[in-house]
Amino acid sequence: MQLYIGNKNYSSWSMRPWVLMKQAGIPFEEVMVRFDSFEADSTFKKALKGVNPVGKVPVLMDDGFAVWDTLAIAEYLAERHPEKRLWPADPKARARARSVCAEMHSGFGALRSHCPMNIEASLPDTGKLIWRDQAGVRADMARLSGLWSELLAAQPEGALLFGDFSIADAYFAPVCMRIKTYELPLPADLAAYVERVCALPGVKAWIDDALAEHDFLDFEEPYRLGR
Amino acid sequence: MQLYIGNKNYSSWSMRPWVLMKQAGIPFEEVMVRFDSFEADSTFKKALKGVNPVGKVPVLMDDGFAVWDTLAIAEYLAERHPEKRLWPADPKARARARSVCAEMHSGFGALRSHCPMNIEASLPDTGKLIWRDQAGVRADMARLSGLWSELLAAQPEGALLFGDFSIADAYFAPVCMRIKTYELPLPADLAAYVERVCALPGVKAWIDDALAEHDFLDFEEPYRLGR
Repeated sequence: MQLYIGNKNYSSWSMRPWVLMKQAGIPFEEVMVRFDSFEADSTFKKALKGVNPVGKVPVLMDDGFAVWDTLAIAEYLAERHPEKRLWPADPKARARARSVCAEMHSGFGALRSHCPMNIEASLPDTGKLIWRDQAGVRADMARLSGLWSELLAAQPEGALLFGDFSIADAYFAPVCMRIKTYELPLPADLAAYVERVCALPGVKAWIDDALAEHDFLDFEEPYRLGR
Repeated sequence: MQLYIGNKNYSSWSMRPWVLMKQAGIPFEEVMVRFDSFEADSTFKKALKGVNPVGKVPVLMDDGFAVWDTLAIAEYLAERHPEKRLWPADPKARARARSVCAEMHSGFGALRSHCPMNIEASLPDTGKLIWRDQAGVRADMARLSGLWSELLAAQPEGALLFGDFSIADAYFAPVCMRIKTYELPLPADLAAYVERVCALPGVKAWIDDALAEHDFLDFEEPYRLGR
């Protein structure tokens, strides 16, 4: 299997299935399609054209068969590798995990647009301005806190959202990156969850690659001037 | 099971699981939560508060357990009713169905924002202006045409996207409504698919209810002046 991804410092959607496969120990070959621009005639769009008609990353290629969109990739891997228990085994926990992933998939728009993922950057001052001015970001973070608190309250101390690692943690890993880059306020027990996610070997491997990337793109850097 | 939905004339997300359950013959009780506004203090948000922390429709309540977000509801129903074959039985077809549903779940933003679902309305002139002015809508429709064409080409004439009715057809049913309301251009074979979707008893039942609703909300009617 090949997983097509974008720049590791920026591509939050690519991060999810990559972290999922790495952390679960599912072998795959990484194919990096560097972001240059998202115009129709960009090298990025042209490179993806033959792989995925949507022209977006991530795409999973399994023996020439394309699976796209992060949630569909997660379901495909969960079906193909039942032994990895990528979703929680309990039907209700599984339904809840799917609810929160689907909510992430289509929601948290303010957080995603105002705090773009930028693993290498440390932008606490920018984060303070965003927090002061963007009610949508505060609302998204309030919802995130409520959701994480409720899930973690049902688990033993130090656990992940559904106990062991699951698709849900991979889904929220890019959010953890944003929280760290912009130093968004979070209660201590949830900040500890963020640290646990960052310490997962699959997540740490992505972060290390992102830090080593040094491929800075102006259109992904709304908050930094020069480097 | 109870399915919480919004106004049938407008709520495209509610339409998907309702049509899915109705068409598949899965019994449920409908709970209509009328849209008044989407502000935090609206009757709509307050009514949903005890049901679903996200404060959005649809929500499926199964013996007091909430499943939210359309895609998670679809997966929950598919697991609970394997005999209904809500996803295609073939693993690759199932993966492809999930890809196109997930793509719909997070994509087609221009079509969704410029052509809000309004089943009762006939707005061909508005549709012509949108088509002329909104490159994003044309791009979304081009992608939709490509996607539908490719799937239907693999099926016998007159079939649905994956042969028999599946979650994918329920997912695109609201798009069919938009295409009809705004009379968006579509090749004849795809327009015939739209008609097949509208003729499905589960879809027809929703349309009939929407037409009988007569609950017109200004904030859902950007293109009509008075009624």
